[in-house]
Amino acid sequence: MSDLKEYISENKERFLSELFELLRIPSISSQSEHKNDMRRAAELWKKLLLEAGADKAEVMETKGNPVTFAEKAIDKKLPTVLVYGHMDVMPVDPVSLWDTPPFEPVIMDGKIYGRGADDDKGQGFIHAKVFEYLVASGKLNCNIKFLIEGEEEIGSPNLMAFCEENRDLLSCDVILVSDTSVISPEIPSITTGLRGLAYWEVEVTGPNRDLHSGLFGGAVANPINVLCKMIAQMTDGDGRITIPGFYDDVLEVSTEERAKMAEAPFDETAYKKSIGVKALKGETGYSTSERTGIRPSFDVCGIWGGYTGEGAKTVLPSKAYAKVSSRLVPNQDHVKIAVLFKNYFESIAPESVSVKVTPLQGGYGYVCPIDIPAYKAAEKAYESVFGKVPVPVRSGGSIPIISSFEQILGVKSVLMGFGLESDAIHGPNENFPLEQFFKGIETVGKFYEYYKG
Amino acid sequence: MSDLKEYISENKERFLSELFELLRIPSISSQSEHKNDMRRAAELWKKLLLEAGADKAEVMETKGNPVTFAEKAIDKKLPTVLVYGHMDVMPVDPVSLWDTPPFEPVIMDGKIYGRGADDDKGQGFIHAKVFEYLVASGKLNCNIKFLIEGEEEIGSPNLMAFCEENRDLLSCDVILVSDTSVISPEIPSITTGLRGLAYWEVEVTGPNRDLHSGLFGGAVANPINVLCKMIAQMTDGDGRITIPGFYDDVLEVSTEERAKMAEAPFDETAYKKSIGVKALKGETGYSTSERTGIRPSFDVCGIWGGYTGEGAKTVLPSKAYAKVSSRLVPNQDHVKIAVLFKNYFESIAPESVSVKVTPLQGGYGYVCPIDIPAYKAAEKAYESVFGKVPVPVRSGGSIPIISSFEQILGVKSVLMGFGLESDAIHGPNENFPLEQFFKGIETVGKFYEYYKG
Repeated sequence: MSDLKEYISENKERFLSELFELLRIPSISSQSEHKNDMRRAAELWKKLLLEAGADKAEVMETKGNPVTFAEKAIDKKLPTVLVYGHMDVMPVDPVSLWDTPPFEPVIMDGKIYGRGADDDKGQGFIHAKVFEYLVASGKLNCNIKFLIEGEEEIGSPNLMAFCEENRDLLSCDVILVSDTSVISPEIPSITTGLRGLAYWEVEVTGPNRDLHSGLFGGAVANPINVLCKMIAQMTDGDGRITIPGFYDDVLEVSTEERAKMAEAPFDETAYKKSIGVKALKGETGYSTSERTGIRPSFDVCGIWGGYTGEGAKTVLPSKAYAKVSSRLVPNQDHVKIAVLFKNYFESIAPESVSVKVTPLQGGYGYVCPIDIPAYKAAEKAYESVFGKVPVPVRSGGSIPIISSFEQILGVKSVLMGFGLESDAIHGPNENFPLEQFFKGIETVGKFYEYYKG
Repeated sequence: MSDLKEYISENKERFLSELFELLRIPSISSQSEHKNDMRRAAELWKKLLLEAGADKAEVMETKGNPVTFAEKAIDKKLPTVLVYGHMDVMPVDPVSLWDTPPFEPVIMDGKIYGRGADDDKGQGFIHAKVFEYLVASGKLNCNIKFLIEGEEEIGSPNLMAFCEENRDLLSCDVILVSDTSVISPEIPSITTGLRGLAYWEVEVTGPNRDLHSGLFGGAVANPINVLCKMIAQMTDGDGRITIPGFYDDVLEVSTEERAKMAEAPFDETAYKKSIGVKALKGETGYSTSERTGIRPSFDVCGIWGGYTGEGAKTVLPSKAYAKVSSRLVPNQDHVKIAVLFKNYFESIAPESVSVKVTPLQGGYGYVCPIDIPAYKAAEKAYESVFGKVPVPVRSGGSIPIISSFEQILGVKSVLMGFGLESDAIHGPNENFPLEQFFKGIETVGKFYEYYKG
């Protein structure tokens, strides 16, 4: 049997064709019209894992979208690795900004384009192919389980319950996840920290119907004007969140650790250029990496109200809405934050409007120690494929279920990500460079070589 | 020949059937897909006026939607009345809030329901029927012209040029307009003042694409957060507009005149109840009628950006938009205000975003003296039909072309409105009570009896 690098090269076309089949399913978990697509994705994952060599694979029910679970047990005395990934993807609006249809994957300029190419179909698929190779080559030296879920992009609302009900099935020594990025193709990194998340929809109601802005304007509170004032009030001039008690549980990172983090390469000019902004903006007193890595944030993810069509309509609308979210840092409790937010938002609403706050998501942050065996094996694997020891970094993103795994299964996760910042995950023209995809397969293969549990 | 009241009663069904034909045309001027409907409306108006007895009627071109012009000249020595109205209507979003389809007019509970039922198809149609009666009964005692335009709801951008090119055609002694409301069916009123209008679309751009709110949130300015802060900054805690120089040309109304205005009946409890709000809100130091009548306002008519679909999407969007407007009072120049707004809006934008301001509409305010013959005739007409001398009121609405008529044609307009506050013009379920419709016809008929030029 050829080694992994040769195996990849021999099976390249098939790998991509299988991945494309997965990418063609519009498995958008936040939109109920795609309910059936979620099931199709779960069935396809089952097929892929059985074909790769699983002893068993099944689509299992949760209170929401189904999950696919598969395993191959070779020896109870050997360690068990649980691979976690997700089959669901983000919505694709605005579709007009995509250069190619989001669910018709294509390869252009050495990159796979399509929704989910990176997050997380492309990265999750890496593990299926490593597994296939290990089984085919007889090199499998541990037990492997797969848990591919269908609600990650909506905060995994039903996976905690599923884990609690299936502790034995999911028991393992470490969890491997590829759902993050490296700093760059030249600077490999492993994400050792994740932010938590709290996400709400807010609704501000003024008059009981849309009013004529001339006849009523100036005398009746306009819910959009009010919502803007309320949102403006949520952060101060220093970029700090004004919700009382919001920072109470934030662990201040020591000067020493901040100094170490500051050694990670960061090119501000290139960063600004890559996202097309003239200036960065964030909490006073913190660097860009700190602002996303160790500090919470407050972002309006969406806002709407009144007339949004062509031309002018002079209306004083009845309602205004926003989707607002906070990234939280480890030790902040999203449940507690949700209460603080609701109380504060209601307290700053003027008497002239009524407000409604609906929590949509919540999740805890996570920290991975860099001295555990699985991290060490991952570190060696990256070094062997990318030629450099990977930098441990705190990411600004959230994978809420990672902290839940720790709570419920008592197991740490190692985040072996291969995405790039330019992959545009969650945005239009999501992509995943072929080089990262194939190097990802090599690196995960190396992990199994070095990991002894 | 019967008198007007009998004529109405004999022809009621036909009047309504003709009006319904007009209401069925979705002549939304702000939406280009309705371009052809605008022409259909113009042709129908031509037909209606020819059938009513016009010597000639024609659809005339402007740089935008066509206008319908008609006239009947009986004697050069007699005064000439120009009737102005508009055939275009407001958009109908959100259609889901309508109880009946907006362009399928119906009569329910004594009211005509449908977009344009009041504003301004229903009210404009009143004049066509009075004209028909005067011609049929031989009671016409002046020359009559009709100018029905198709761009009032988008600020009449091409009508000024049309008036300048057709001064002779449009020459007249007074302009009659029914496009306003009375205080209530029991308290007739004539609008003697109108606010001006300035309306812009603003666009705030942050990063060059939608970003992942976890990976970038906290370090990159979010254009929605920024737009909210900017809008919040446009008004202060006293409800005053903060644009430097904004109030420079506002005529402060004398204490004496304010005292007189305060005599007009106003039931705050009923007002609040009718629009479903617990509290009113506006500029400190002014009453509700003053806030809409003699003071400018700042309203966001629409806002949008980011993810607005079902569920949660964690995105830091690239762009945020708003449609913002100011109602201006007489003496404020919308052209000057547009410059002040643009400069201010750009000046308060942080370096981390770029902004674009696009003017969409602008118009001057208007004041009608209450001692001119046409106003006096209108006053007597209302008194004779409604049983009470009408109250002269300053409205918060805008009909920008009214001040243009004065500038170009040198003629005052008398605003003989018959709408009610509950007609929900510009909103869902627009309606026009049959009683106001028929009383309107009677009242305009009386006007011609009393008006001697």
